[in-house]
Amino acid sequence: MSRFLSSAMKALAPYIPGEQPSDRKYIKLNTNESPFPPSEKAVKAAEEAAKSLQLYPALDGGRLRSEIAEYLGVGYDEVAVTNGSDEVLNLCFKAFCSTQSPAAFADITYGFYPVFANYNCVPYEIIPLKDDFTVDPCDYIGINKNIFIANPNAPTGIFLPVSDIEKIIKSNPDNVVVVDEAYIDFGGESCVPLIKKYPNLVVTQTFSKSRSMAGARLGFGVACPELINDLYRLIYSTNPYNLSRLNMAVGIAAMEDSEYTRRNCAEVVSTREKFTEDLRSLGFEVLPSLANFVFAKKEGVSGRELYERLRSEGILVRRFDSPRINDWLRITIGARDDMKTLVEKLRLITENLL
Amino acid sequence: MSRFLSSAMKALAPYIPGEQPSDRKYIKLNTNESPFPPSEKAVKAAEEAAKSLQLYPALDGGRLRSEIAEYLGVGYDEVAVTNGSDEVLNLCFKAFCSTQSPAAFADITYGFYPVFANYNCVPYEIIPLKDDFTVDPCDYIGINKNIFIANPNAPTGIFLPVSDIEKIIKSNPDNVVVVDEAYIDFGGESCVPLIKKYPNLVVTQTFSKSRSMAGARLGFGVACPELINDLYRLIYSTNPYNLSRLNMAVGIAAMEDSEYTRRNCAEVVSTREKFTEDLRSLGFEVLPSLANFVFAKKEGVSGRELYERLRSEGILVRRFDSPRINDWLRITIGARDDMKTLVEKLRLITENLL
Repeated sequence: MSRFLSSAMKALAPYIPGEQPSDRKYIKLNTNESPFPPSEKAVKAAEEAAKSLQLYPALDGGRLRSEIAEYLGVGYDEVAVTNGSDEVLNLCFKAFCSTQSPAAFADITYGFYPVFANYNCVPYEIIPLKDDFTVDPCDYIGINKNIFIANPNAPTGIFLPVSDIEKIIKSNPDNVVVVDEAYIDFGGESCVPLIKKYPNLVVTQTFSKSRSMAGARLGFGVACPELINDLYRLIYSTNPYNLSRLNMAVGIAAMEDSEYTRRNCAEVVSTREKFTEDLRSLGFEVLPSLANFVFAKKEGVSGRELYERLRSEGILVRRFDSPRINDWLRITIGARDDMKTLVEKLRLITENLL
Repeated sequence: MSRFLSSAMKALAPYIPGEQPSDRKYIKLNTNESPFPPSEKAVKAAEEAAKSLQLYPALDGGRLRSEIAEYLGVGYDEVAVTNGSDEVLNLCFKAFCSTQSPAAFADITYGFYPVFANYNCVPYEIIPLKDDFTVDPCDYIGINKNIFIANPNAPTGIFLPVSDIEKIIKSNPDNVVVVDEAYIDFGGESCVPLIKKYPNLVVTQTFSKSRSMAGARLGFGVACPELINDLYRLIYSTNPYNLSRLNMAVGIAAMEDSEYTRRNCAEVVSTREKFTEDLRSLGFEVLPSLANFVFAKKEGVSGRELYERLRSEGILVRRFDSPRINDWLRITIGARDDMKTLVEKLRLITENLL
């Protein structure tokens, strides 16, 4: 840190993304990337878009925004497109939270929420999940805070029914509820239709998981026009051209190939169910997941040991150094063969044969 | 605005980018885009990168960062790559300015500076340019504020000698000086070498102008490792994957084809000199520009009238509704033929023949 850094920024504890080592080839099951390449249409679209890179991108999200709106059955003015869903989440903290209007979120959830809160100097309440790692909706009823809920939650994969979320939204009419649906396409039910009913709801989604585009940095927020307008006010105060022509072009191609996305998600879901079964038959506890990962642990083996043994065998999974979950592993659902390899390695490790 | 928007954000006056109308085809000389397509290598690189979009991009800027460092003759740890130079500029306001450490910049300069300051709740002093639109370095000596200087300045195009900037940096050792060199490749001398000497200097540049990549959203900051480290601290607290794989890939291709960039810049400079001469022979006052645009006005014709007449003739230029410059037009240097067309239209308009 330099002596020029402001004291508020000195106090930050930045987010730590999953490791991306380059020392050897790994089976990478640590950052919830898709095992499938993007739609072939995206490759063509990127090449085409690159030819006119000398021009600024469309303002306001252009055709990408209208494609997303059409796909979701909402209006153009009910969508904001952003540089990954991280951008829209960060903007929600900046736009709607303040010292007078704090944030609230779970103790075990997307690790970026407290970072965004601190970055924007927003106070926040941490609400512990229940012992079984589910959200108790009662904890959020009428709390008068801006609530951030990942649904399905990460890293647990557990889905909270839309009816529970609706109660939370309804009971906090003077605050915004942000439902982060990064993993919604793997079996959950989206809250998007509720934006027509509640002026205090923002739903965020991403192209990183179901659309095989973690590398394209595309996310979006869905909300009533007034909230979307607020978000664009902030986008125009930071980076009006927040998406490159290339990112927009591949995003449009992905939206036009929704059948490909749907097929890949179905394959991930089916692999997840098989993998969950396999883990359980090895004696693992596995939380019920509606995401493209599972959260699992084995009684009697520490999370660190499992993580390290797998790493030395060329398989990367994610673990977190937080008290309640440090014996758990978050394992991305990858290609079927990779999951088979992982199950076999776990069998050998837990039976002390490796 | 929704009733949920925080009061600080309600007070914002967002940046207004140059118009991007789609009602007809225009000769677009209003946003300082390059008249040349990007390097052909970039097109190939985009296609190739699109094939592995399912994976997150490299953290920390990866090879793009090392290519830029090598090109500039600085270390990898002296470069931060960002989503346009707007991102690095915004981060500099957030990182180094505060109520205790205000900002300062000219009255006539890049219009985003006050927006970034307001967005980050940073107080600032506005220092008027002299009557001839040059910066008086004396106005910045020992002012104990974080100084933002566009060099060449926009929208004037006027270049401030590096020796003057060095005096400013030297006299404000407890503050950061940010030199915004978006237009440096069209004839100015860069301050980059000074980063080895001054721990309080950040130089920012962009791929938008000289590298024909306004659509790729690529910028970077150059500074001593401590300041770069501060900037990455903020990037890791907002969007660690701030650049898509596609944007990085085309950026790397552009860096590998620096000869193409150099040739295009030389062509822009030569067109600018010819265009300046032509404007002057029509009786225009034209400021001496070292950028890819000129700032010009004609006594007796209002800026608005000229702007509107040109627009109706299918030529877009930029004007600003600020008291000191509302009769001036900022005109991007485009293709030679387009500049010829513009000169002819201006001749007809100013001679009342159109």
